[in-house]
Amino acid sequence: MTHNVLLLPGDGIGPEIAAQAARLLDACQKAGLDISVEEALVGGSAYDAHGVPLPDATLEKARKASAILLGAVGGPKWDKIDDLSKRPEKGLLGLRKNLGLFGNLRPAMLYPQLASASSLKPELVAGLDIMIVRELTGGIYFGQPRGIEERNGERVGFNTYVYSESEIERIGRVAFEMAQKRGKKLCSVDKANVLEVTILWREVMERLAPEYPDVELSHMYVDNAAMQLVRAPKQFDVVVTGNMFGDILSDAAAMLTGSIGMLPSASLNETGQGMYEPCHGSAPDIAGQNIANPLAMMLSVAMMLRYSLNETAMAERIEAAVGRVLDDGLRTADIASPGMQTVSTVEMGDAVLAAF
Amino acid sequence: MTHNVLLLPGDGIGPEIAAQAARLLDACQKAGLDISVEEALVGGSAYDAHGVPLPDATLEKARKASAILLGAVGGPKWDKIDDLSKRPEKGLLGLRKNLGLFGNLRPAMLYPQLASASSLKPELVAGLDIMIVRELTGGIYFGQPRGIEERNGERVGFNTYVYSESEIERIGRVAFEMAQKRGKKLCSVDKANVLEVTILWREVMERLAPEYPDVELSHMYVDNAAMQLVRAPKQFDVVVTGNMFGDILSDAAAMLTGSIGMLPSASLNETGQGMYEPCHGSAPDIAGQNIANPLAMMLSVAMMLRYSLNETAMAERIEAAVGRVLDDGLRTADIASPGMQTVSTVEMGDAVLAAF
Ligand SMILES: CC(C)[C@H](C(=O)O)[C@@H](O)C(=O)O
Ligand SMILES: CC(C)[C@H](C(=O)O)[C@@H](O)C(=O)O
Repeated sequence: MTHNVLLLPGDGIGPEIAAQAARLLDACQKAGLDISVEEALVGGSAYDAHGVPLPDATLEKARKASAILLGAVGGPKWDKIDDLSKRPEKGLLGLRKNLGLFGNLRPAMLYPQLASASSLKPELVAGLDIMIVRELTGGIYFGQPRGIEERNGERVGFNTYVYSESEIERIGRVAFEMAQKRGKKLCSVDKANVLEVTILWREVMERLAPEYPDVELSHMYVDNAAMQLVRAPKQFDVVVTGNMFGDILSDAAAMLTGSIGMLPSASLNETGQGMYEPCHGSAPDIAGQNIANPLAMMLSVAMMLRYSLNETAMAERIEAAVGRVLDDGLRTADIASPGMQTVSTVEMGDAVLAAF
Repeated sequence: MTHNVLLLPGDGIGPEIAAQAARLLDACQKAGLDISVEEALVGGSAYDAHGVPLPDATLEKARKASAILLGAVGGPKWDKIDDLSKRPEKGLLGLRKNLGLFGNLRPAMLYPQLASASSLKPELVAGLDIMIVRELTGGIYFGQPRGIEERNGERVGFNTYVYSESEIERIGRVAFEMAQKRGKKLCSVDKANVLEVTILWREVMERLAPEYPDVELSHMYVDNAAMQLVRAPKQFDVVVTGNMFGDILSDAAAMLTGSIGMLPSASLNETGQGMYEPCHGSAPDIAGQNIANPLAMMLSVAMMLRYSLNETAMAERIEAAVGRVLDDGLRTADIASPGMQTVSTVEMGDAVLAAF
């Protein structure tokens, strides 16, 4: 069966890193992977071409794809668009919502070769390997009512943080299953001492726990979780949390590694269809300079092969190739280090392909 | 004029550290400060005695006080109270709301003597001095509607993140003025690419900026702020944000110093009345052992003298005494370090009093 992969380069450095992913997909095909690759527009580039961040044609292709690879969206160029529904980010949010990609897996792991890139002391992060499971299609990102309106003679802005039991249960199961495959520890993050919606969250996690007796469930308030990530990140194995807290904590966790340019992520729906993208953003400040790190994007290809296409061997080949390139001392500017060779986006792509 | 100080020891280690603050207030009085000190119950201890976390008598005393000193509230003992309105935290939230303490100042500064306590590399945190200005009486903490209810055959939890222009303006002015007194840099943190309420937030900050031409205003998304705090915290001077983001970021920032047991905080209302408390929590796991660090609480006394009682000289005396004790190598367990003398809560109190 041919795997249909949709490549969405997006904005900023997106097209540059997507080009390296495209080359890698090509190499996979030559190595025997039955795959077809299509491209489409999303985000600011779609807005520029079609006036909307998620054109119907893109959504149509996305629905039909076996898996989606996304570069990144957004940039200051589009920050001034008054209509929030037209901003690049809405392209990404629209894909997540329309495809039901509720399960966001954000690994924060430290490559031993890059240990010195972390801002934390080496002994605190050596061997770090956290998996943040973030709910991605609910919570305050999508809650209604929302808006800005006049009340008592002044404007008021409002959003709604909402979760139903079934939404919580669904992401909870993803997290428990992930913990079963890993270190068997699951930490659910909430603010149950203040927010009712997270009281329900905690309750549902507690209700699920007996079905996964081999997993040790704990709970942590979000403020404490932010502290513990800084203080002693290795205490975590799998973390599960809502959309907003997950946004914040997954970025903090990724940054602990000092090499966010290395981290892929997956967003899965109930059928196992998935969208794969780097944890980093569109980095408009360095776009077009051929200096962005393509490795998170290339590792997103590996993650896609593993989680959506069931091509574990090919995924491992990619990961091994990336490891070899790091061993050889090649580094893009974001992970540059004395004594190592600083290379461009394309040169890094070349090196991974050569090692593949 | 006699300053009436209300001391609220609270729960967990609260009473132990409050006792050291009480001794310090005594010493201030002997040194000429015209002060009277009263005590009252709040949090879990109030619930145990009166069935509510904020008894009317406590609120009455708080209203009349020139300033309030709070230890900490909460603990697992009360986590099972089903009625959220009875939980210890609601005592704290009730005080904030009833007294209109909207301006929360949370300094994250690194004592040079404790530089090695940070989990970050020394060069990244040496000289760290951030002031987080958190809105404290609005946002999702207090937004209506809120609750858990049945919808379409299942339970749904919901909270409302809401800010009016005037609420944003009020905290914005506190932050701009704080920046004027400090490094003249203000970073406003929001999630304006997703949440309407923070679009309004950003707009109001922009509108205020021309009134403070000496302050350089910047904006950052909350996920990026969490990353930047880990990556390069010294880029920040004053940070202003809403209640929930402020809760998360101020804890992360405090933990960057590695010595959250050293950090006081202030919560001010429009009349300058304030509540002062350590940034750390009630630490029920070490309560009653005489090992908690009383310095954040004693430094809260100094902060109170400075911000609410206008007794700058006395505040400086306390801060100098704490500095001397650290110079002398005294450390409580949380900041223990090889070659330094580990002391108890009371011994640390003794030492500060002796140096005062
Ligand atoms: C671009 C933005 C809408 C998005 C989010 O907040 O989810 C991004 O920060 C992410 O984490 O994928
Ligand atoms: C105890 C809790 C309600 C409180 C908060 O979330 O505001 C605490 O975490 C704080 O930051 O003061």
